[in-house]
Amino acid sequence: MHAFVTGAAGFVGSNLVDRLLELGHTVTGYDNFSTGHAAFLESATTNEKFRLVTGDLLDTEKLNSAIRGADVVFHLAANADVRFGLEHPRKDLEQNTIATFNVLEAMRANGLGTIAFSSTGSVYGEATVFPTPEDAPFPSQTSLYGASKLACEGLISAYVEGYGMRGYIFRFVSLLAERYTHGHVYDFVKSLLADPSTLHVLGDGQQRKSYLHVSDCVSAILTALDHTEKRLAIFNLGAEEYCKINDSAGWIAARMGCNPRLTYSGGDRGWVGDNPFIFLDTKRIRALGWRPEFSIQESVERTVDWLVGNQWVYSAHRG
Amino acid sequence: MHAFVTGAAGFVGSNLVDRLLELGHTVTGYDNFSTGHAAFLESATTNEKFRLVTGDLLDTEKLNSAIRGADVVFHLAANADVRFGLEHPRKDLEQNTIATFNVLEAMRANGLGTIAFSSTGSVYGEATVFPTPEDAPFPSQTSLYGASKLACEGLISAYVEGYGMRGYIFRFVSLLAERYTHGHVYDFVKSLLADPSTLHVLGDGQQRKSYLHVSDCVSAILTALDHTEKRLAIFNLGAEEYCKINDSAGWIAARMGCNPRLTYSGGDRGWVGDNPFIFLDTKRIRALGWRPEFSIQESVERTVDWLVGNQWVYSAHRG
Repeated sequence: MHAFVTGAAGFVGSNLVDRLLELGHTVTGYDNFSTGHAAFLESATTNEKFRLVTGDLLDTEKLNSAIRGADVVFHLAANADVRFGLEHPRKDLEQNTIATFNVLEAMRANGLGTIAFSSTGSVYGEATVFPTPEDAPFPSQTSLYGASKLACEGLISAYVEGYGMRGYIFRFVSLLAERYTHGHVYDFVKSLLADPSTLHVLGDGQQRKSYLHVSDCVSAILTALDHTEKRLAIFNLGAEEYCKINDSAGWIAARMGCNPRLTYSGGDRGWVGDNPFIFLDTKRIRALGWRPEFSIQESVERTVDWLVGNQWVYSAHRG
Repeated sequence: MHAFVTGAAGFVGSNLVDRLLELGHTVTGYDNFSTGHAAFLESATTNEKFRLVTGDLLDTEKLNSAIRGADVVFHLAANADVRFGLEHPRKDLEQNTIATFNVLEAMRANGLGTIAFSSTGSVYGEATVFPTPEDAPFPSQTSLYGASKLACEGLISAYVEGYGMRGYIFRFVSLLAERYTHGHVYDFVKSLLADPSTLHVLGDGQQRKSYLHVSDCVSAILTALDHTEKRLAIFNLGAEEYCKINDSAGWIAARMGCNPRLTYSGGDRGWVGDNPFIFLDTKRIRALGWRPEFSIQESVERTVDWLVGNQWVYSAHRG
């Protein structure tokens, strides 16, 4: 396969690129390096089957030319900043919705037929059914991020129906482990590196969340592509368990060998649009034989190890 | 109330404008006249409480200035061309998704708090539950039009949650009656005016569809605004019945006094993305006391009368 991977220098993108190359595929990576890191592609760039194009998805001319010759598109590039969405609403519209439209149009112009897309469990808004299945009651959106990902899902579905494409939509929980660069583990480790005696938690720490190791996520995506014949296939991806933010805070502190005093901002959610309970039903992807290899605790601990060993990401990144 | 109505010169917009003025409200109408007609605002423009701004929703500067001073926004402007969406996918993105984003941003910049939005039953894709309730299983999109309206719904919901706005989302079936300018009744009347001896039907004529008189739709919107205190309220709007395209063809021919031979393109749908069965559950809006005044047959007949008496729309419009 010749894969075209958007967001190739990002957290999920670079892990997927490495796996695809390991499997012997040809990969064209596309990234604007707004949040991606060249360091994440260090191994990939030594592989002669890898080509990197530095470009923005809003640059349709560059995109159209870079995508030519690929046969499967993994569209992972996105503004993934859920928490600060309200500070810059145009970002989700442009980098998620319009960028996805541009990818679909570039595919259509070049006769590409298959797209795999990183959506999010956030499209369920505040779910009413747990674990939440793919056909949960029609949700209302509670974040601009979720709304923009829903818009992308809609576009992909309509292109599949209207232009005869094949679409794989993956609704992720938050991912963890190597190359993870935002979210609560990132924030907690940063805070404990600076001051191991205290840790401030947004919300009351009782928020229940599910996570998944990025390597398990990549395996799930490739399993779906190998084992589904449906024209439009939608899968939840997540662990078969959830934890509380307080559990995670404890695992992180223990892994770092410290014992901070916890303080709380209070309330049942960390910020406007935060979801106090995320737990996805993954029966559909498990029916294809996929199982996560890592528990949430193991994923959190590996994330801590990686962040502690790669503190350069804190200076390279905002927050 | 000072209402700001986008798409004011359109089918639904102009009917809403007339009703709001009748009720004594102040109205600013905004329209780019891409599909709207000055003739639809003939009565409104004689009312001193009406102001018309000719502008495009992609012109954010004009929009920001026109919206100032209003307190409720009725956002009805849209590319409503479901059938030919695949010929120009950018139209739904720009005129629906991005236009709605611009309206929400203009509201935020000017401190406006309430939006009523014309969505569509098309967001249910190919529904699996009939009549289809607002909380039907999470659907997949089958048309670019439905996908773009879903994107708008998501944006509005996220703005309601994130910026404390109030949002009313109305998922319409197809509307009929005075000032109706596209859809199967429009096409059938046009064809029978040209040649009353034969009528070509897209699909097998067995498609089951629900309709609503535009006046009943306007009443439902105003009922919802008067009787709901929810921050985000979503309502299906439609008749409590459906008909087959063949029934409708019969009513139209009878009303026009002709007896055409029917021919069919065949298949269970009229075009790619056409939905063979649309029937919405309207319990939620009926619980507020609203009932449709017109049956589908009456709505079809009034539409025929209006089209026969206003054949200028056929030369003013494509198709």
